[in-house]
Amino acid sequence: MKIEENHIQNVNNNDLKSHNDHFDFLSNSLNNKGVDVNNIVKKLQEFQVAIPSWALGAGGTRFGRFSFYGEPSNLEQKIQDVGLIHSLTQTAGAVSLHIPWDIPEDYKAIKEIASGLNIKFDAVNSNTFQDQKNAKESYKYGSLSNTSEAVRQQAIQHNLDVINIGDKLGSKSLTVWLADGSCFPGQNNFQTALQNTENSLKEIYKGLPNDWSMLIEYKPYEPNFYSTVIQDWGTSFMLANACGDKAYSLVDLGHHLPNSNIEQIVSILMLKGKLGGFHFNDSKYGDDDLTVGSIKPYALFLIFNELVYGMQNNPQNPDLAWMIDASHNVKDPLEDLIQSLEAIQEAYAKALLVDQNELKIAQQENDVVKCQEILQNAYRTDVRPLLEKARLNAGGALNPIKAYRSLDVRNELIKERGKNTVATGL
Amino acid sequence: MKIEENHIQNVNNNDLKSHNDHFDFLSNSLNNKGVDVNNIVKKLQEFQVAIPSWALGAGGTRFGRFSFYGEPSNLEQKIQDVGLIHSLTQTAGAVSLHIPWDIPEDYKAIKEIASGLNIKFDAVNSNTFQDQKNAKESYKYGSLSNTSEAVRQQAIQHNLDVINIGDKLGSKSLTVWLADGSCFPGQNNFQTALQNTENSLKEIYKGLPNDWSMLIEYKPYEPNFYSTVIQDWGTSFMLANACGDKAYSLVDLGHHLPNSNIEQIVSILMLKGKLGGFHFNDSKYGDDDLTVGSIKPYALFLIFNELVYGMQNNPQNPDLAWMIDASHNVKDPLEDLIQSLEAIQEAYAKALLVDQNELKIAQQENDVVKCQEILQNAYRTDVRPLLEKARLNAGGALNPIKAYRSLDVRNELIKERGKNTVATGL
Amino acid sequence: MKIEENHIQNVNNNDLKSHNDHFDFLSNSLNNKGVDVNNIVKKLQEFQVAIPSWALGAGGTRFGRFSFYGEPSNLEQKIQDVGLIHSLTQTAGAVSLHIPWDIPEDYKAIKEIASGLNIKFDAVNSNTFQDQKNAKESYKYGSLSNTSEAVRQQAIQHNLDVINIGDKLGSKSLTVWLADGSCFPGQNNFQTALQNTENSLKEIYKGLPNDWSMLIEYKPYEPNFYSTVIQDWGTSFMLANACGDKAYSLVDLGHHLPNSNIEQIVSILMLKGKLGGFHFNDSKYGDDDLTVGSIKPYALFLIFNELVYGMQNNPQNPDLAWMIDASHNVKDPLEDLIQSLEAIQEAYAKALLVDQNELKIAQQENDVVKCQEILQNAYRTDVRPLLEKARLNAGGALNPIKAYRSLDVRNELIKERGKNTVATGL
Amino acid sequence: MKIEENHIQNVNNNDLKSHNDHFDFLSNSLNNKGVDVNNIVKKLQEFQVAIPSWALGAGGTRFGRFSFYGEPSNLEQKIQDVGLIHSLTQTAGAVSLHIPWDIPEDYKAIKEIASGLNIKFDAVNSNTFQDQKNAKESYKYGSLSNTSEAVRQQAIQHNLDVINIGDKLGSKSLTVWLADGSCFPGQNNFQTALQNTENSLKEIYKGLPNDWSMLIEYKPYEPNFYSTVIQDWGTSFMLANACGDKAYSLVDLGHHLPNSNIEQIVSILMLKGKLGGFHFNDSKYGDDDLTVGSIKPYALFLIFNELVYGMQNNPQNPDLAWMIDASHNVKDPLEDLIQSLEAIQEAYAKALLVDQNELKIAQQENDVVKCQEILQNAYRTDVRPLLEKARLNAGGALNPIKAYRSLDVRNELIKERGKNTVATGL
Repeated sequence: MKIEENHIQNVNNNDLKSHNDHFDFLSNSLNNKGVDVNNIVKKLQEFQVAIPSWALGAGGTRFGRFSFYGEPSNLEQKIQDVGLIHSLTQTAGAVSLHIPWDIPEDYKAIKEIASGLNIKFDAVNSNTFQDQKNAKESYKYGSLSNTSEAVRQQAIQHNLDVINIGDKLGSKSLTVWLADGSCFPGQNNFQTALQNTENSLKEIYKGLPNDWSMLIEYKPYEPNFYSTVIQDWGTSFMLANACGDKAYSLVDLGHHLPNSNIEQIVSILMLKGKLGGFHFNDSKYGDDDLTVGSIKPYALFLIFNELVYGMQNNPQNPDLAWMIDASHNVKDPLEDLIQSLEAIQEAYAKALLVDQNELKIAQQENDVVKCQEILQNAYRTDVRPLLEKARLNAGGALNPIKAYRSLDVRNELIKERGKNTVATGL
Repeated sequence: MKIEENHIQNVNNNDLKSHNDHFDFLSNSLNNKGVDVNNIVKKLQEFQVAIPSWALGAGGTRFGRFSFYGEPSNLEQKIQDVGLIHSLTQTAGAVSLHIPWDIPEDYKAIKEIASGLNIKFDAVNSNTFQDQKNAKESYKYGSLSNTSEAVRQQAIQHNLDVINIGDKLGSKSLTVWLADGSCFPGQNNFQTALQNTENSLKEIYKGLPNDWSMLIEYKPYEPNFYSTVIQDWGTSFMLANACGDKAYSLVDLGHHLPNSNIEQIVSILMLKGKLGGFHFNDSKYGDDDLTVGSIKPYALFLIFNELVYGMQNNPQNPDLAWMIDASHNVKDPLEDLIQSLEAIQEAYAKALLVDQNELKIAQQENDVVKCQEILQNAYRTDVRPLLEKARLNAGGALNPIKAYRSLDVRNELIKERGKNTVATGL
Repeated sequence: MKIEENHIQNVNNNDLKSHNDHFDFLSNSLNNKGVDVNNIVKKLQEFQVAIPSWALGAGGTRFGRFSFYGEPSNLEQKIQDVGLIHSLTQTAGAVSLHIPWDIPEDYKAIKEIASGLNIKFDAVNSNTFQDQKNAKESYKYGSLSNTSEAVRQQAIQHNLDVINIGDKLGSKSLTVWLADGSCFPGQNNFQTALQNTENSLKEIYKGLPNDWSMLIEYKPYEPNFYSTVIQDWGTSFMLANACGDKAYSLVDLGHHLPNSNIEQIVSILMLKGKLGGFHFNDSKYGDDDLTVGSIKPYALFLIFNELVYGMQNNPQNPDLAWMIDASHNVKDPLEDLIQSLEAIQEAYAKALLVDQNELKIAQQENDVVKCQEILQNAYRTDVRPLLEKARLNAGGALNPIKAYRSLDVRNELIKERGKNTVATGL
Repeated sequence: MKIEENHIQNVNNNDLKSHNDHFDFLSNSLNNKGVDVNNIVKKLQEFQVAIPSWALGAGGTRFGRFSFYGEPSNLEQKIQDVGLIHSLTQTAGAVSLHIPWDIPEDYKAIKEIASGLNIKFDAVNSNTFQDQKNAKESYKYGSLSNTSEAVRQQAIQHNLDVINIGDKLGSKSLTVWLADGSCFPGQNNFQTALQNTENSLKEIYKGLPNDWSMLIEYKPYEPNFYSTVIQDWGTSFMLANACGDKAYSLVDLGHHLPNSNIEQIVSILMLKGKLGGFHFNDSKYGDDDLTVGSIKPYALFLIFNELVYGMQNNPQNPDLAWMIDASHNVKDPLEDLIQSLEAIQEAYAKALLVDQNELKIAQQENDVVKCQEILQNAYRTDVRPLLEKARLNAGGALNPIKAYRSLDVRNELIKERGKNTVATGL
């Protein structure tokens, strides 16, 4: 199934008048305050977020998984699904592949499908947290950190293979998420585990093409429940420094201990030129992988406030790889992703509304009340008309969820694919 | 100092045109969706929150306190301060006294001052977490739960005295916050401590006038760091049931373990007819007592969503005692309180926008995406024009912080009171 | 495979002299302090913990599972495994079945196998958190709390079926763990969900034989990541009260928010006569299901201190159903369970060493230092000789892990069962 | 008051026989396993922990403070108190001063008092989290990170003054704990705050004598409740690297987010040669500053396991500055400190029992069960006889708490000092 632009226009038509009214009113109001609305709309249009190939089917927990109908069962269908989301939102112009779940059989064909849908290949992701059938070595006790050299070599080689695959598709970065760690005190020697990891990462780094970057994720726990080798940003930052200029930290919003101040981490990494990528999701308890913005939208805004500040003030930091990393346990995966994209754009738009000069002055004067007012004024603004305008300009839907349902996308997919398909990797 | 209505009108005049434009646009837009805007504005006008008498000066931490200039140094000045906030916001029509810090010397005089400012006396608060000079018994090891009967009796008698003081002022409820607990394993016998507490509360309950209620607060830790006798809503609920129909649980937003689902607690207590009062503040780590809505405004909205639901659907639950309980460590206390009131009204207004019927249907159909959309649509709406209208109708300021600063209130207070006053109890 | 007593004696022989020396020395030392050592040994011998049928194979996480060799592939083999553990530890004289994973085909045969190994059938566990093949209704959106009556009826009927199965085996209690809850704000109406749950539990309660009890588990999150219907002990307690005298709360050590004071919950539930069962495990982050005592052994001791106190002082509380509920992700499951049993016995023994009279006096006098000394003196005692003696008296192994390895149990099981069996339910 | 060695001997005499029996039995038992008991006792004897000058009086919380009788009211009396503890425990041979609370009037006299009690001057601590009377600038909005250069200069100069004071006393390190941070989103620019802090620390570092070290503490929150400039070890490590070879991180056990794996942080800092100091205490919720080992003794043991490993294997890391940093809210401060010292020595002794070679082999083979057994075997050993022996060898008390009470120390202090003294800084 493919959504044509005129289908979207038909759905939009009903809401166009209302959209125009709201946009004009908001636009006037903001322009009066000196905000360059067009520039914000332009930035929203340009902002693209990668969809991970593993998040197009229903997710689950260790207690089981309730599948969804019409899931994509191969890479072509996954890219097709990203295309559907991108048509509607005009924000999802990239896909992030997970290897070995998504190794293309025919590279040329896959690239053509993607480019036909305006989908780029973002970071590629390696998997050393599960054993593959017929694998010689097991990752049960770690991969890049394993006490066995043979296991480490297998894991290094896998990452090099992933780079190779990504290279053929046009990816420019490798994301390394390591589950390595331990479940019990004493199981690991922390120092050995870290040194093994550093050495392994350096081996992978050697295989990185010149225009690539390596993104090193961190996470405090799960699937290991006592220690994780790369447990926090400090460890990831240390490893990125040890590897070299093309190595960066990657922040996943769900990978922090309770009550962490994530926006501060983001800000400091950008100051140091070492923030390379971002995985969006939301959570209340742990790495819950919920829809972006569904639990703590103000925290998301505060993070974007730092991201916007950094993008404007930290030339030492590279462009970021943006990706959603959520698990769709109780919603239609495509609808869930659309809601996430909306929340991301909303937080970005609000952050763009913050008057950075006024804020700097209030900070300098320790006018705490005013600092808060400045952030809250931006946050309290209803920016939905700006998001609609950005999508409209790009040929997307005013209201993507509404359009998705009007166009009966899920039922079309079920017709095409059947009810009981299961996405690879799930 | 007293703010006259015409002063406020002068300040409002500049912003009146803009307010009208925004209100009309929003009002039209909401009316088109079937929302009864006037009713919402009316409800906002009626919603009044008590200001605690101890929160009008700068707060501090165990590491010290940085005082603020022009703090009120006696009860009269405290009520005056509440009057200032109320003039501007028209939302702070009550004060909640803390005994023994605020025992009136002349009841008649105090009542006249308060009624002249349209301030009512809300719940009175007892203090058995500190020793008063010349007290016979010490609360170092607990009050209502103490192993010593003499200590328990002193604490019971203090609560009865507080009721008596409140009764003379027109209060109708007693809030009991117990710091009782232990700092080390073994220090307390949990069962004895709870039974002593229950018996003591029953003694106090006996002294409650017929039209009064007793509000039992809970808190997991601080100032005791191993256990607290009334550690959670379950314990508070159990005690309220044991005492009788006039005893209720009181929820303070900062009194929960990390990641608690507070809105669910609120909802269940209302279902059981046992939610009696509410202390507003915000927090990132513990009982941080920050400005309401400054950290997790969406959580506040979700809580209000349950409060609104309960007020509409749970006749078994009484009217609630609303109070702000925050500590003003780095802001002007009055500005801080104004920001809190704004955040409360905002969350209330947004909760009133939720279409409960539509939500019920979506819940029944397990349309999780739609349930989320309904809440987010309400939350994403910029309701500031509704708050402005409610204040305007009542004679308050369109923008209370702006008016406060225009009228140079703090400097006036410093002129009247001097720089180095310290509020009692701080 | 079956371990004969003489095999164990052979293994014990080498360590017997050392054991006797240590036991005698400790015994003398404790007797001098007035401790009745024989009584403690007797209590340790009598203390039996059920092994859940689902924990005899390797566990996993949502990121995958690394299987273990020689896992039991049917109920007979599972009971055989419990028998092996029981032979060595003499502490695991019961099995707790999970339905539908362990429905016996031949009840008589199963009962004979179990009784031949001195294994009783403890609480039976229902499963309404996963869909079974060919099930008419899905539990994706809840079971006993579901908005659909048909789903609720199916879940009620399943629980009644489980009672029936358990009844045929000699079980005397039903454990209800409900995953029901929601992943997103708005998804559930908290009040409706709780009322549905209460009504459903009452239906199940009606089907409970007279000499049975119903154990209601609580858990704050997972697999739902926004709310859980029975989120805490307060909710479980309320539901148990609503159902009747045979309904109790069940505490699982991993089912609490960070920093909860679990020992206080245990104590209060026993005071109220409503603690029915206990699931042992350990955790650092969430419901990590690690080996008992591997992370916070002092907390386990403090909990046992309350359990011992309650067993001695709260006749209103019934005998408890004890069970290990852990997940064996990186260890041999049988070795893991043996380590858990050792930790449980250790905590119990130390709790039995606490001088309750001395403690009561110190508490009464607020001698906090002494209260701590009393608990720490008990905890710091090396009680391993007492555990050894209790096992020795009952025909078990002095050192169960050592014996397990000496007898080459795992390799025997692999020989019998093959490498690649997978336990049902995993 | 001063405790003479013969007083201690008199108290010891009663318990000497029992001690000898227990020590001999344990010693034999450990020697049989190849443990060098004498070496462990020697290490315990050598291990000395500094007592902070501010922890000799009762502590409190923001809700108040219950004072204790006979508190020291000047520096001489504080050192005297440390001397009392050291006489009994032979483990507290150092004091750590807090400036400006403890500026000596007569350096020579103070040094003589200290050396007469065998007390050294450990790290000196600066205070930029409170305003001193007549201070020109206020730290309300930060010190080394402040937006105002004048404030930063005052804070820098204060630290230089502290170095100067410490130098005269023989201290060799400066501990910098910064409360700097913010209470509300937007209040601080994270990047500016960090850069200001780095520059200020570099200024202080310039004033450091050649044989001194600078210890940089980190803490996630309190007294600021939204952000803290040096929020975690990663930030502290980064700053220490920026300052130079004599700058190190300092770990305070209470300064971490919930569920942090502190032992891993300790291990990695030692690997990098950047762990400079350690503040002992214990906590259940936040920075509770409870008696060491009173809540999570196994975690303390695991941390010591890494410290011992690092001291043996990381020559790149310097000797550590050890200090207790606890708050004595409900116990006699001296008894509380004695309990802390006992818990530290216990954890150290148990860590010294771990067979590092055996552990390395088990780790290499991924024998997780055995790794756990090795740690637990060490931890389960009752090492109190070793601690007694170490104290006895050095002239201390077999049981310091018992001796403290037998010698009626507190009453003697009350006689000397009166009831209502208050320690400076409280």
